Amino acid sequence: MGRGYIIPIGGAEERLRDPAILERFVAVCGGPEARIAIIPTASSERRTGNGYERVFRGLGAGAARSLPIYDRRDCGDRRFLRRLERADGVFLTGGNQLKLSTTIGGTQVADMLRRRNAEDGLHVAGTSAGAAFLSEHMIAFGEEGSTPRAHMVTLAPGLGLTHTAIIDQHFRQRDRLGRLLTALAYNPRPIGIGLDEDTAAFIDPHDRLVVHGSGAITIVDPSELAFSSMDSARQDDAVCVLDVRLHILTEGAAYDIGARRATPPAQARETAAS
Amino acid sequence: MGRGYIIPIGGAEERLRDPAILERFVAVCGGPEARIAIIPTASSERRTGNGYERVFRGLGAGAARSLPIYDRRDCGDRRFLRRLERADGVFLTGGNQLKLSTTIGGTQVADMLRRRNAEDGLHVAGTSAGAAFLSEHMIAFGEEGSTPRAHMVTLAPGLGLTHTAIIDQHFRQRDRLGRLLTALAYNPRPIGIGLDEDTAAFIDPHDRLVVHGSGAITIVDPSELAFSSMDSARQDDAVCVLDVRLHILTEGAAYDIGARRATPPAQARETAAS
Repeated sequence: MGRGYIIPIGGAEERLRDPAILERFVAVCGGPEARIAIIPTASSERRTGNGYERVFRGLGAGAARSLPIYDRRDCGDRRFLRRLERADGVFLTGGNQLKLSTTIGGTQVADMLRRRNAEDGLHVAGTSAGAAFLSEHMIAFGEEGSTPRAHMVTLAPGLGLTHTAIIDQHFRQRDRLGRLLTALAYNPRPIGIGLDEDTAAFIDPHDRLVVHGSGAITIVDPSELAFSSMDSARQDDAVCVLDVRLHILTEGAAYDIGARRATPPAQARETAAS
Repeated sequence: MGRGYIIPIGGAEERLRDPAILERFVAVCGGPEARIAIIPTASSERRTGNGYERVFRGLGAGAARSLPIYDRRDCGDRRFLRRLERADGVFLTGGNQLKLSTTIGGTQVADMLRRRNAEDGLHVAGTSAGAAFLSEHMIAFGEEGSTPRAHMVTLAPGLGLTHTAIIDQHFRQRDRLGRLLTALAYNPRPIGIGLDEDTAAFIDPHDRLVVHGSGAITIVDPSELAFSSMDSARQDDAVCVLDVRLHILTEGAAYDIGARRATPPAQARETAAS
Protein backbone atom coordinates (compact mmCIF):
# COMPACT_ATOMS: atom_id res chain seq x y z
CA MET A 1 0.00 0.00 0.00
CA GLY A 2 2.96 2.31 0.47
CA ARG A 3 3.58 5.04 2.97
CA GLY A 4 0.86 7.07 4.66
CA TYR A 5 0.93 10.79 5.26
CA ILE A 6 3.24 12.30 7.87
CA ILE A 7 1.63 15.43 9.32
CA PRO A 8 3.55 17.60 11.77
CA ILE A 9 1.52 20.49 13.25
CA GLY A 10 3.15 23.51 14.94
CA GLY A 11 1.02 23.36 18.09
CA ALA A 12 -1.99 25.41 19.23
CA GLU A 13 -4.02 24.32 16.21
CA GLU A 14 -7.57 25.66 16.14
CA ARG A 15 -9.93 23.00 17.53
CA LEU A 16 -13.27 24.76 17.81
CA ARG A 17 -14.00 27.81 15.68
CA ASP A 18 -12.27 26.84 12.45
CA PRO A 19 -10.46 23.51 12.92
CA ALA A 20 -9.26 23.39 9.30
CA ILE A 21 -6.11 21.35 10.01
CA LEU A 22 -7.84 18.67 12.10
CA GLU A 23 -10.70 18.56 9.59
CA ARG A 24 -8.24 17.89 6.78
CA PHE A 25 -6.54 15.19 8.85
CA VAL A 26 -9.90 13.44 9.31
CA ALA A 27 -10.57 13.71 5.56
CA VAL A 28 -7.11 12.27 4.69
CA CYS A 29 -7.85 9.33 7.02
CA GLY A 30 -11.14 8.56 5.29
CA GLY A 31 -13.77 10.88 6.82
CA PRO A 32 -16.79 8.84 7.93
CA GLU A 33 -14.75 5.64 7.45
CA ALA A 34 -11.77 6.91 9.43
CA ARG A 35 -10.65 5.08 12.57
CA ILE A 36 -8.40 7.43 14.48
CA ALA A 37 -6.25 6.45 17.46
CA ILE A 38 -5.01 9.23 19.75
CA ILE A 39 -1.74 8.86 21.66
CA PRO A 40 -1.81 11.37 24.55
CA THR A 41 1.51 10.26 26.05
CA ALA A 42 3.28 13.62 25.73
CA SER A 43 0.66 15.42 27.80
CA SER A 44 0.66 15.65 31.58
CA GLU A 45 -3.05 16.52 31.45
CA ARG A 46 -5.04 13.28 31.44
CA ARG A 47 -8.08 14.79 29.71
CA THR A 48 -6.15 15.79 26.58
CA GLY A 49 -6.88 12.55 24.76
CA ASN A 50 -10.60 12.67 25.46
CA GLY A 51 -10.74 16.25 24.23
CA TYR A 52 -9.36 15.16 20.86
CA GLU A 53 -11.82 12.22 20.76
CA ARG A 54 -14.65 14.74 20.91
CA VAL A 55 -13.08 17.04 18.31
CA PHE A 56 -12.46 14.24 15.78
CA ARG A 57 -15.94 12.76 16.27
CA GLY A 58 -17.44 16.23 15.89
CA LEU A 59 -15.57 16.53 12.58
CA GLY A 60 -17.24 13.35 11.34
CA ALA A 61 -14.54 10.72 11.89
CA GLY A 62 -16.00 7.20 11.92
CA ALA A 63 -14.26 6.45 15.22
CA ALA A 64 -11.80 8.25 17.48
CA ARG A 65 -10.33 6.64 20.57
CA SER A 66 -7.61 7.82 22.93
CA LEU A 67 -5.18 5.12 24.06
CA PRO A 68 -4.03 5.89 27.62
CA ILE A 69 -0.36 4.99 27.08
CA TYR A 70 1.53 6.52 29.98
CA ASP A 71 4.32 4.07 30.76
CA ARG A 72 6.44 1.57 28.88
CA ARG A 73 4.35 -1.38 30.07
CA ASP A 74 1.30 0.14 28.36
CA CYS A 75 3.17 -0.18 25.06
CA GLY A 76 2.76 -3.97 25.15
CA ASP A 77 -0.99 -3.85 25.95
CA ARG A 78 -2.80 -6.10 23.44
CA ARG A 79 -5.89 -3.89 23.26
CA PHE A 80 -3.84 -0.83 22.35
CA LEU A 81 -1.84 -2.74 19.75
CA ARG A 82 -5.04 -4.12 18.21
CA ARG A 83 -6.45 -0.59 17.94
CA LEU A 84 -3.27 0.64 16.29
CA GLU A 85 -3.27 -2.34 13.91
CA ARG A 86 -6.73 -1.35 12.67
CA ALA A 87 -6.34 2.46 12.71
CA ASP A 88 -6.37 4.58 9.55
CA GLY A 89 -4.78 7.50 11.35
CA VAL A 90 -2.84 8.13 14.56
CA PHE A 91 -2.68 11.50 16.30
CA LEU A 92 0.07 12.34 18.81
CA THR A 93 -0.87 15.18 21.18
CA GLY A 94 1.39 17.94 22.45
CA GLY A 95 3.25 18.05 25.74
CA ASN A 96 6.86 16.98 26.17
CA GLN A 97 8.57 15.13 23.34
CA LEU A 98 10.95 13.43 25.76
CA LYS A 99 7.93 11.79 27.40
CA LEU A 100 7.08 10.35 24.00
CA SER A 101 10.58 9.14 23.24
CA THR A 102 11.24 7.70 26.71
CA THR A 103 7.83 6.01 26.96
CA ILE A 104 7.32 4.72 23.42
CA GLY A 105 10.87 4.45 22.06
CA GLY A 106 11.93 0.87 21.33
CA THR A 107 8.49 -0.61 22.14
CA GLN A 108 5.95 -2.51 20.05
CA VAL A 109 3.91 0.69 19.69
CA ALA A 110 6.84 2.48 18.03
CA ASP A 111 7.56 -0.53 15.82
CA MET A 112 3.97 -0.70 14.70
CA LEU A 113 3.70 3.02 13.96
CA ARG A 114 6.89 2.90 11.88
CA ARG A 115 5.96 -0.26 10.01
CA ARG A 116 2.34 0.64 9.32
CA ASN A 117 3.23 4.20 8.24
CA ALA A 118 5.95 2.96 5.89
CA GLU A 119 4.18 -0.06 4.37
CA ASP A 120 0.53 0.04 5.21
CA GLY A 121 -0.63 3.59 4.47
CA LEU A 122 -1.21 4.56 8.11
CA HIS A 123 -1.35 8.35 8.42
CA VAL A 124 0.47 9.79 11.44
CA ALA A 125 -0.07 13.34 12.68
CA GLY A 126 1.45 15.03 15.70
CA THR A 127 1.09 18.49 17.19
CA SER A 128 3.83 20.39 19.04
CA ALA A 129 5.81 17.72 20.95
CA GLY A 130 3.98 15.15 18.82
CA ALA A 131 5.35 16.85 15.69
CA ALA A 132 8.93 17.02 16.96
CA PHE A 133 8.83 13.28 17.75
CA LEU A 134 7.89 12.15 14.23
CA SER A 135 11.31 12.34 12.58
CA GLU A 136 14.43 10.24 13.07
CA HIS A 137 16.33 13.14 14.64
CA MET A 138 14.22 14.96 17.20
CA ILE A 139 14.93 18.32 18.80
CA ALA A 140 14.59 17.44 22.48
CA PHE A 141 15.10 20.98 23.73
CA GLY A 142 17.12 24.09 23.06
CA GLU A 143 17.47 27.81 23.50
CA GLU A 144 15.67 30.65 21.75
CA GLY A 145 17.23 33.12 19.32
CA SER A 146 17.40 33.46 15.57
CA THR A 147 21.13 32.95 15.01
CA PRO A 148 22.83 29.64 15.78
CA ARG A 149 25.17 29.07 18.72
CA ALA A 150 27.16 25.98 19.51
CA HIS A 151 25.45 23.55 21.89
CA MET A 152 22.17 25.51 21.87
CA VAL A 153 20.16 22.48 20.80
CA THR A 154 19.96 18.90 22.02
CA LEU A 155 18.99 16.20 19.56
CA ALA A 156 17.64 12.78 20.49
CA PRO A 157 16.34 9.84 18.49
CA GLY A 158 12.68 10.28 17.60
CA LEU A 159 9.99 7.94 16.27
CA GLY A 160 11.83 7.73 12.97
CA LEU A 161 9.07 7.98 10.36
CA THR A 162 11.39 10.07 8.16
CA HIS A 163 15.10 10.79 7.83
CA THR A 164 14.60 13.64 5.40
CA ALA A 165 13.59 16.38 7.84
CA ILE A 166 14.16 17.77 11.31
CA ILE A 167 10.99 19.31 12.65
CA ASP A 168 10.60 22.27 14.98
CA GLN A 169 7.33 23.78 16.22
CA HIS A 170 5.95 26.97 17.84
CA PHE A 171 8.52 28.31 15.40
CA ARG A 172 7.70 31.97 15.11
CA GLN A 173 6.16 32.17 18.55
CA ARG A 174 9.31 30.87 20.29
CA ASP A 175 11.99 32.20 17.95
CA ARG A 176 13.59 28.92 16.98
CA LEU A 177 15.47 29.50 13.74
CA GLY A 178 18.81 29.50 15.58
CA ARG A 179 18.30 26.09 17.15
CA LEU A 180 17.04 24.60 13.88
CA LEU A 181 20.09 25.95 12.03
CA THR A 182 22.30 24.57 14.78
CA ALA A 183 20.68 21.14 14.44
CA LEU A 184 21.20 21.18 10.66
CA ALA A 185 24.76 22.48 10.92
CA TYR A 186 25.78 19.25 12.68
CA ASN A 187 24.98 17.36 9.49
CA PRO A 188 23.30 19.19 6.63
CA ARG A 189 21.61 16.10 5.21
CA PRO A 190 17.98 16.58 6.27
CA ILE A 191 16.03 19.77 5.65
CA GLY A 192 14.59 21.79 8.53
CA ILE A 193 10.83 22.28 8.85
CA GLY A 194 9.93 25.09 11.26
CA LEU A 195 6.19 25.15 11.93
CA ASP A 196 4.37 28.19 13.27
CA GLU A 197 1.44 27.52 15.58
CA ASP A 198 -1.87 26.54 13.94
CA THR A 199 0.07 25.46 10.84
CA ALA A 200 0.64 21.97 9.47
CA ALA A 201 2.78 20.27 6.85
CA PHE A 202 0.84 17.50 5.08
CA ILE A 203 3.72 15.36 3.77
CA ASP A 204 2.41 12.91 1.19
CA PRO A 205 3.82 9.43 0.36
CA HIS A 206 6.16 11.01 -2.22
CA ASP A 207 7.69 13.41 0.33
CA ARG A 208 5.88 16.38 -1.12
CA LEU A 209 4.45 18.66 1.55
CA VAL A 210 1.56 21.10 1.34
CA VAL A 211 0.98 23.81 3.95
CA HIS A 212 -2.33 24.29 5.72
CA GLY A 213 -3.14 26.70 8.52
CA SER A 214 -2.98 30.34 9.50
CA GLY A 215 0.79 30.70 10.01
CA ALA A 216 3.89 29.91 8.00
CA ILE A 217 6.30 27.03 7.59
CA THR A 218 9.97 27.90 7.36
CA ILE A 219 11.90 25.46 5.17
CA VAL A 220 15.65 25.51 5.78
CA ASP A 221 17.48 23.75 2.94
CA PRO A 222 21.17 23.26 3.71
CA SER A 223 21.94 21.17 0.62
CA GLU A 224 24.10 23.90 -0.92
CA LEU A 225 25.84 24.64 2.38
CA ALA A 226 29.28 25.99 1.52
CA PHE A 227 30.72 26.23 5.03
CA SER A 228 29.85 25.66 8.67
CA SER A 229 32.12 26.38 11.64
CA MET A 230 30.23 23.90 13.81
CA ASP A 231 33.19 21.54 13.99
CA SER A 232 35.37 24.11 15.73
CA ALA A 233 32.79 26.18 17.65
CA ARG A 234 32.95 26.06 21.41
CA GLN A 235 30.00 26.29 23.82
CA ASP A 236 27.90 29.43 23.16
CA ASP A 237 30.10 30.55 20.25
CA ALA A 238 28.17 32.07 17.37
CA VAL A 239 28.28 29.61 14.46
CA CYS A 240 29.19 30.63 10.91
CA VAL A 241 26.91 29.06 8.28
CA LEU A 242 27.14 29.97 4.57
CA ASP A 243 24.68 29.38 1.75
CA VAL A 244 21.48 28.16 3.31
CA ARG A 245 18.34 28.34 1.20
CA LEU A 246 15.23 29.58 2.98
CA HIS A 247 11.56 29.43 2.04
CA ILE A 248 8.64 30.82 4.01
CA LEU A 249 5.57 28.84 2.95
CA THR A 250 1.97 29.78 3.68
CA GLU A 251 -1.43 28.13 3.18
CA GLY A 252 -1.50 26.20 -0.07
CA ALA A 253 2.22 26.48 -0.85
CA ALA A 254 4.10 23.24 -1.47
CA TYR A 255 7.60 21.84 -1.13
CA ASP A 256 9.08 18.77 -2.74
CA ILE A 257 11.57 17.44 -0.18
CA GLY A 258 13.28 15.10 -2.64
CA ALA A 259 13.70 17.68 -5.39
CA ARG A 260 14.23 20.52 -2.87
CA ARG A 261 11.79 22.69 -4.79
CA ALA A 262 9.18 25.15 -3.47
CA THR A 263 5.96 26.07 -5.24
CA PRO A 264 3.82 29.14 -4.46
CA PRO A 265 0.21 28.72 -3.31
CA ALA A 266 -1.69 29.21 -6.60
CA GLN A 267 0.53 26.93 -8.70
CA ALA A 268 0.62 24.32 -5.96
CA ARG A 269 -3.16 24.23 -5.85
CA GLU A 270 -3.32 23.59 -9.59
CA THR A 271 -1.06 20.55 -9.43
CA ALA A 272 -1.54 19.16 -5.92
CA ALA A 273 -3.24 15.88 -5.21
CA SER A 274 -4.11 16.75 -1.61
CA MET B 1 39.41 59.79 -2.58
CA GLY B 2 36.42 57.54 -2.94
CA ARG B 3 34.02 56.20 -0.38
CA GLY B 4 34.84 55.64 3.27
CA TYR B 5 33.82 52.65 5.35
CA ILE B 6 30.20 52.16 6.41
CA ILE B 7 30.12 50.36 9.76
CA PRO B 8 26.80 49.28 11.23
CA ILE B 9 27.06 47.76 14.74
CA GLY B 10 24.28 45.66 16.29
CA GLY B 11 24.12 47.58 19.58
CA ALA B 12 25.50 46.79 23.05
CA GLU B 13 29.06 46.69 21.74
CA GLU B 14 31.69 46.04 24.38
CA ARG B 15 33.20 49.39 25.51
CA LEU B 16 35.38 48.51 28.46
CA ARG B 17 36.69 45.00 28.87
CA ASP B 18 37.38 44.07 25.25
CA PRO B 19 36.23 46.90 22.98
CA ALA B 20 37.42 45.15 19.81
CA ILE B 21 34.86 46.74 17.48
CA LEU B 22 35.43 50.32 18.66
CA GLU B 23 39.19 49.74 18.63
CA ARG B 24 39.02 48.63 15.01
CA PHE B 25 36.90 51.67 14.15
CA VAL B 26 39.58 53.95 15.64
CA ALA B 27 42.25 52.10 13.65
CA VAL B 28 40.28 52.39 10.39
CA CYS B 29 39.96 56.15 11.02
CA GLY B 30 43.72 56.56 11.45
CA GLY B 31 44.51 55.66 15.08
CA PRO B 32 46.57 58.44 16.68
CA GLU B 33 45.78 60.68 13.68
CA ALA B 34 42.03 60.01 13.84
CA ARG B 35 39.61 62.88 14.43
CA ILE B 36 36.31 61.33 15.44
CA ALA B 37 33.02 63.20 15.71
CA ILE B 38 30.24 61.63 17.77
CA ILE B 39 26.58 62.31 16.94
CA PRO B 40 24.51 61.45 20.03
CA THR B 41 21.20 62.60 18.57
CA ALA B 42 19.41 59.23 18.86
CA SER B 43 19.99 59.02 22.59
CA SER B 44 17.71 60.53 25.22
CA GLU B 45 20.59 60.30 27.72
CA ARG B 46 22.71 63.45 27.41
CA ARG B 47 25.89 61.81 28.73
CA THR B 48 26.03 59.21 25.97
CA GLY B 49 28.21 61.35 23.71
CA ASN B 50 30.74 62.14 26.43
CA GLY B 51 30.97 58.47 27.33
CA TYR B 52 32.05 57.66 23.77
CA GLU B 53 34.54 60.58 23.81
CA ARG B 54 36.29 58.90 26.73
CA VAL B 55 36.20 55.45 25.14
CA PHE B 56 37.67 56.63 21.81
CA ARG B 57 40.37 58.71 23.52
CA GLY B 58 41.21 55.74 25.73
CA LEU B 59 41.62 53.66 22.56
CA GLY B 60 44.18 56.12 21.26
CA ALA B 61 42.16 58.27 18.86
CA GLY B 62 43.88 61.60 18.11
CA ALA B 63 40.67 63.46 18.93
CA ALA B 64 37.10 62.53 19.82
CA ARG B 65 34.39 65.13 20.27
CA SER B 66 30.64 64.73 20.77
CA LEU B 67 28.49 67.23 18.85
CA PRO B 68 25.36 68.01 20.87
CA ILE B 69 22.92 67.97 17.95
CA TYR B 70 19.46 67.63 19.45
CA ASP B 71 17.19 69.69 17.20
CA ARG B 72 17.05 70.66 13.54
CA ARG B 73 18.49 74.12 14.24
CA ASP B 74 21.65 72.51 15.59
CA CYS B 75 22.16 70.98 12.15
CA GLY B 76 23.05 74.39 10.72
CA ASP B 77 25.52 75.23 13.51
CA ARG B 78 28.80 76.34 11.89
CA ARG B 79 31.01 74.83 14.61
CA PHE B 80 29.41 71.43 14.20
CA LEU B 81 29.68 71.57 10.41
CA ARG B 82 33.35 72.58 10.66
CA ARG B 83 34.05 69.61 12.93
CA LEU B 84 32.30 67.25 10.51
CA GLU B 85 34.19 68.77 7.58
CA ARG B 86 37.49 67.87 9.25
CA ALA B 87 36.54 64.53 10.78
CA ASP B 88 38.07 61.23 9.66
CA GLY B 89 35.28 59.24 11.25
CA VAL B 90 31.76 59.86 12.53
CA PHE B 91 30.06 57.68 15.13
CA LEU B 92 26.26 57.67 15.56
CA THR B 93 25.15 56.43 18.99
CA GLY B 94 22.15 54.24 19.78
CA GLY B 95 18.72 55.37 20.91
CA ASN B 96 15.79 55.91 18.58
CA GLN B 97 16.42 55.95 14.83
CA LEU B 98 13.37 58.15 14.25
CA LYS B 99 15.07 60.82 16.38
CA LEU B 100 17.98 60.66 13.96
CA SER B 101 15.86 60.81 10.83
CA THR B 102 13.52 63.55 12.09
CA THR B 103 16.35 65.70 13.49
CA ILE B 104 19.06 65.26 10.84
CA GLY B 105 17.08 64.31 7.72
CA GLY B 106 17.26 66.94 4.98
CA THR B 107 19.76 69.17 6.87
CA GLN B 108 23.31 70.25 6.11
CA VAL B 109 24.61 67.64 8.55
CA ALA B 110 22.97 64.84 6.54
CA ASP B 111 24.20 66.32 3.26
CA MET B 112 27.73 66.55 4.55
CA LEU B 113 27.77 63.00 5.93
CA ARG B 114 26.51 61.63 2.61
CA ARG B 115 28.85 63.68 0.46
CA ARG B 116 31.97 63.16 2.55
CA ASN B 117 31.32 59.41 2.95
CA ALA B 118 30.76 58.97 -0.79
CA GLU B 119 33.55 61.18 -2.13
CA ASP B 120 35.93 62.07 0.62
CA GLY B 121 36.71 58.83 2.44
CA LEU B 122 34.85 59.76 5.64
CA HIS B 123 34.16 56.61 7.66
CA VAL B 124 30.71 56.45 9.25
CA ALA B 125 29.82 54.01 12.03
CA GLY B 126 26.56 53.67 13.90
CA THR B 127 25.40 51.40 16.69
CA SER B 128 21.83 50.15 17.18
CA ALA B 129 19.58 53.04 16.07
CA GLY B 130 22.69 54.61 14.54
CA ALA B 131 23.18 51.45 12.44
CA ALA B 132 19.57 51.30 11.25
CA PHE B 133 19.81 54.94 10.12
CA LEU B 134 22.82 54.46 7.81
CA SER B 135 21.06 52.99 4.78
CA GLU B 136 18.63 54.55 2.31
CA HIS B 137 15.73 52.42 3.56
CA MET B 138 15.59 52.36 7.34
CA ILE B 139 13.55 50.04 9.53
CA ALA B 140 11.77 52.55 11.76
CA PHE B 141 10.03 49.98 13.92
CA GLY B 142 8.33 46.63 13.71
CA GLU B 143 7.19 43.52 15.52
CA GLU B 144 9.17 40.52 16.72
CA GLY B 145 8.97 36.99 15.31
CA SER B 146 11.00 34.93 12.89
CA THR B 147 8.47 34.51 10.08
CA PRO B 148 7.22 37.49 8.07
CA ARG B 149 3.73 38.96 8.38
CA ALA B 150 2.19 41.70 6.30
CA HIS B 151 2.54 45.20 7.78
CA MET B 152 4.81 44.02 10.59
CA VAL B 153 7.53 46.48 9.68
CA THR B 154 7.56 50.22 8.97
CA LEU B 155 10.23 51.59 6.66
CA ALA B 156 11.31 55.21 6.52
CA PRO B 157 14.00 57.08 4.60
CA GLY B 158 17.34 56.88 6.38
CA LEU B 159 20.62 58.74 6.01
CA GLY B 160 21.16 57.10 2.62
CA LEU B 161 24.84 56.12 2.64
CA THR B 162 23.95 52.93 0.76
CA HIS B 163 21.09 51.54 -1.32
CA THR B 164 22.46 48.03 -1.33
CA ALA B 165 21.38 46.93 2.14
CA ILE B 166 18.65 47.20 4.75
CA ILE B 167 20.11 46.98 8.23
CA ASP B 168 18.56 45.54 11.36
CA GLN B 169 20.17 45.34 14.80
CA HIS B 170 19.79 43.51 18.15
CA PHE B 171 18.97 40.80 15.64
CA ARG B 172 19.18 37.60 17.60
CA GLN B 173 18.34 39.27 20.89
CA ARG B 174 15.03 40.68 19.60
CA ASP B 175 14.08 38.02 17.08
CA ARG B 176 13.93 40.17 13.98
CA LEU B 177 14.26 37.87 10.99
CA GLY B 178 10.54 38.18 10.25
CA ARG B 179 10.58 41.94 10.01
CA LEU B 180 13.75 41.97 7.90
CA LEU B 181 12.20 39.44 5.49
CA THR B 182 9.06 41.56 5.37
CA ALA B 183 11.10 44.65 4.54
CA LEU B 184 12.92 42.80 1.75
CA ALA B 185 9.73 41.21 0.41
CA TYR B 186 8.40 44.67 -0.52
CA ASN B 187 11.22 44.99 -3.02
CA PRO B 188 13.94 42.34 -3.10
CA ARG B 189 16.61 44.66 -4.47
CA PRO B 190 18.79 45.31 -1.40
CA ILE B 191 20.17 42.57 0.80
CA GLY B 192 19.30 42.36 4.49
CA ILE B 193 22.00 42.68 7.15
CA GLY B 194 20.83 41.48 10.57
CA LEU B 195 23.38 42.34 13.25
CA ASP B 196 23.54 40.60 16.61
CA GLU B 197 24.60 42.72 19.57
CA ASP B 198 28.35 43.36 19.97
CA THR B 199 28.80 42.55 16.28
CA ALA B 200 29.74 44.88 13.43
CA ALA B 201 29.87 44.83 9.64
CA PHE B 202 32.90 46.74 8.34
CA ILE B 203 31.74 47.53 4.79
CA ASP B 204 34.70 48.69 2.73
CA PRO B 205 34.63 51.11 -0.24
CA HIS B 206 34.05 48.18 -2.60
CA ASP B 207 30.94 47.00 -0.72
CA ARG B 208 32.75 44.04 0.73
CA LEU B 209 31.94 43.51 4.39
CA VAL B 210 33.94 41.76 7.08
CA VAL B 211 32.42 40.68 10.39
CA HIS B 212 33.90 41.62 13.76
CA GLY B 213 32.49 40.94 17.20
CA SER B 214 31.21 38.18 19.42
CA GLY B 215 27.87 37.49 17.70
CA ALA B 216 26.74 36.75 14.18
CA ILE B 217 25.55 38.69 11.17
CA THR B 218 22.63 37.23 9.24
CA ILE B 219 22.79 38.03 5.55
CA VAL B 220 19.47 37.66 3.76
CA ASP B 221 19.97 37.60 -0.01
CA PRO B 222 16.68 37.79 -1.90
CA SER B 223 18.23 38.07 -5.38
CA GLU B 224 16.98 34.63 -6.42
CA LEU B 225 13.54 35.21 -4.92
CA ALA B 226 11.10 33.07 -6.89
CA PHE B 227 7.86 34.25 -5.30
CA SER B 228 6.50 36.56 -2.62
CA SER B 229 2.84 36.92 -1.66
CA MET B 230 3.45 40.41 -0.25
CA ASP B 231 1.40 42.07 -2.96
CA SER B 232 -1.78 40.27 -1.90
CA ALA B 233 -1.19 39.78 1.84
CA ARG B 234 -3.51 41.59 4.19
CA GLN B 235 -2.65 42.96 7.63
CA ASP B 236 -1.12 40.27 9.88
CA ASP B 237 -1.32 37.59 7.16
CA ALA B 238 1.65 35.26 7.08
CA VAL B 239 3.69 36.03 3.97
CA CYS B 240 4.89 33.36 1.54
CA VAL B 241 8.51 33.88 0.42
CA LEU B 242 10.35 31.36 -1.76
CA ASP B 243 14.06 30.97 -2.47
CA VAL B 244 15.86 33.27 -0.10
CA ARG B 245 19.56 32.64 0.45
CA LEU B 246 20.78 32.89 4.02
CA HIS B 247 24.26 33.19 5.49
CA ILE B 248 25.19 33.36 9.14
CA LEU B 249 28.55 35.08 9.34
CA THR B 250 30.82 35.19 12.38
CA GLU B 251 34.08 36.95 13.30
CA GLY B 252 36.35 37.16 10.29
CA ALA B 253 33.83 35.94 7.70
CA ALA B 254 33.24 38.19 4.70
CA TYR B 255 30.49 39.00 2.23
CA ASP B 256 30.77 40.69 -1.13
CA ILE B 257 27.52 42.63 -1.50
CA GLY B 258 27.99 43.27 -5.22
CA ALA B 259 28.86 39.69 -6.11
CA ARG B 260 26.50 38.29 -3.43
CA ARG B 261 29.20 35.90 -2.28
CA ALA B 262 30.08 34.79 1.25
CA THR B 263 33.52 33.67 2.39
CA PRO B 264 34.25 31.70 5.57
CA PRO B 265 36.50 33.19 8.28
CA ALA B 266 39.85 31.55 7.44
CA GLN B 267 39.72 32.23 3.69
CA ALA B 268 38.45 35.75 4.24
CA ARG B 269 41.41 36.49 6.52
CA GLU B 270 43.83 35.36 3.84
CA THR B 271 42.48 37.75 1.22
CA ALA B 272 41.01 40.64 3.22
CA ALA B 273 42.52 44.10 3.19
CA SER B 274 40.97 45.13 6.50
